[in-house]
Amino acid sequence: MHELGVDVLLLSTGADLPYLTGYEAMPLERLTMFVLPGDGDAELVVPRLEAPRVVEDGAFAIVSWEEHDDPIALVAARIGGLRSAAIGDQTWGRFVLELQQALPALEMRSAADVLAPLRAVKDANELVALAAAAEAVDAVAGSMRDERFAGRTELDIHRELVDRMMAVGHRRANFAIVAAGSNAASPHHEPTERVIVPGELVLCDFGGVMDGYCSDITRMFAVGEAPADVRETYDVLVAAQEAGVRAATVGSTGAEVDAVTRRVLADAGHGEAFIHRTGHGIGAEAHEDPYLVAGNDAPLVAGNAFSIEPGIYVEQRFGMRLEDIVVATDSGPRRLNHAPRDLAVVA
Amino acid sequence: MHELGVDVLLLSTGADLPYLTGYEAMPLERLTMFVLPGDGDAELVVPRLEAPRVVEDGAFAIVSWEEHDDPIALVAARIGGLRSAAIGDQTWGRFVLELQQALPALEMRSAADVLAPLRAVKDANELVALAAAAEAVDAVAGSMRDERFAGRTELDIHRELVDRMMAVGHRRANFAIVAAGSNAASPHHEPTERVIVPGELVLCDFGGVMDGYCSDITRMFAVGEAPADVRETYDVLVAAQEAGVRAATVGSTGAEVDAVTRRVLADAGHGEAFIHRTGHGIGAEAHEDPYLVAGNDAPLVAGNAFSIEPGIYVEQRFGMRLEDIVVATDSGPRRLNHAPRDLAVVA
Repeated sequence: MHELGVDVLLLSTGADLPYLTGYEAMPLERLTMFVLPGDGDAELVVPRLEAPRVVEDGAFAIVSWEEHDDPIALVAARIGGLRSAAIGDQTWGRFVLELQQALPALEMRSAADVLAPLRAVKDANELVALAAAAEAVDAVAGSMRDERFAGRTELDIHRELVDRMMAVGHRRANFAIVAAGSNAASPHHEPTERVIVPGELVLCDFGGVMDGYCSDITRMFAVGEAPADVRETYDVLVAAQEAGVRAATVGSTGAEVDAVTRRVLADAGHGEAFIHRTGHGIGAEAHEDPYLVAGNDAPLVAGNAFSIEPGIYVEQRFGMRLEDIVVATDSGPRRLNHAPRDLAVVA
Repeated sequence: MHELGVDVLLLSTGADLPYLTGYEAMPLERLTMFVLPGDGDAELVVPRLEAPRVVEDGAFAIVSWEEHDDPIALVAARIGGLRSAAIGDQTWGRFVLELQQALPALEMRSAADVLAPLRAVKDANELVALAAAAEAVDAVAGSMRDERFAGRTELDIHRELVDRMMAVGHRRANFAIVAAGSNAASPHHEPTERVIVPGELVLCDFGGVMDGYCSDITRMFAVGEAPADVRETYDVLVAAQEAGVRAATVGSTGAEVDAVTRRVLADAGHGEAFIHRTGHGIGAEAHEDPYLVAGNDAPLVAGNAFSIEPGIYVEQRFGMRLEDIVVATDSGPRRLNHAPRDLAVVA
């Protein structure tokens, strides 16, 4: 903070606060804000009815506010005459505007300037947690290979993925995309009551939170043997993902890794069908730095954890994506997911 | 917007956007922003990979951006030289700051100034949806009376509530607080692996989303017959809630309704134990205007929907809360929840 000229860090909803303190603010209209001056003691401004959830460990003081108090005034009083604040990216916009109104001279910048470089480098404990979360969803992905898909709806499979994530120890499911047939041409498709029929590909992309760290995996299921051209296309996808993983070495940039997967797909004629970036960082949040995308010229460093997830999307026909979490290490890229990567043939 | 001097409405994550368009932005680092000028045509700036989720009905144009585009520049170009913007309350703070940097002369205020008064008055279709969501959680609450609680954990009951909400047609569970014994003294307790034992009270506060509208109900369960003093305290809570519902007439202020429940509890010696407001509005969001809290001197109008949920919290001992959704109508307050309100005795 001193180096960046930041006088005070302000954290509310999002993963920065639990990353620093273990406490997660509820994303509600009652403001929770952690106020950490560069010089001085930290305080957590929190609604009184949520104060019992805070574990007091002496690292910061608790300032609880009653329903008729003005929490913005409480935060502003703590900032006082400080000049520059860094505020959490996911803080609700209304609180940013209200703080600006209360403190017109305060300069505000993103707390990511301070915290993203720290959060992007995982230590040994964080890697253990990420690996455990990955192993849990690997088990879910593996178990789905024995399930019947035909005759069930996308929502049925969605609920089953959520249940299984919870059963293998996840605290929360963040998402469980189930997209059958042409629905998978939309990468963020929301599962529907549409019934899955034989001959379709089904994309399952799911993840959640276990011990504070996120999982995220995508596997493809073919309901009955897929046609030869679809299998060939899938082979290209596997090759692109493998190339992306191999390229994710310490010192390579996010843009370079993205270019590698894109090149494999383009060389096979699928360049236009890969409509999103190659991957995103993962940790306390499902999406965080570093992003593997054109324009990101920052080199990967040891301890970065991220997804490698190329996809091929053909409107009116199908969509496919293959995703693992990978860690950049000094001895090369290390995959955290190990569930089989072939096109699983299911009933 | 003309009356308020707002030139353009900017909506991202949160319920304002689906309220106006049916489309819900994903709460992710890729910006989705609806740009609605007071004079001119609306446009939705959306990541290309989420564009297929948008149902085009001609009411607005879609501007999809590629992974290497700058979505802030796309939004800023659409705002151009306009002077005053109203931006959604839950827009991520980083996007507010980035827009301010791109357009330093733009004045920003809360989109709630424009939309909250509209959203707070439910029309007939919205009331049907709220009533259906309430009926669904009533069924869940009623069915829990036949369940065994003793020997199970708070998390077991939590998962069962979530499953049952989905089974009765909810699209999403927003929360399912299960707090046993002294844990319930924390109003927003998060369920744990703690085993429920005979003789305890268990607080269950749960809700979710069905057809775009929210449910929210709290019921109390006694594992075996509760002691006389606890039952007497519960009777006071029932009386306070009943008084609050009766007071929630068109023309009464949020502060007045809050004072009514508080008075009943205070008269019985529980004033200090009621540590939160009496209620919150509900609709497309679980918490929205109007709030029933000291300081809210706006009178209720016909079509307002809100919770009435007094509580009594005694540290180290127990917590209890009773909550129904109520609508203010010209013929008086109308409860949407009808599950039995007595202290359910369970095994």
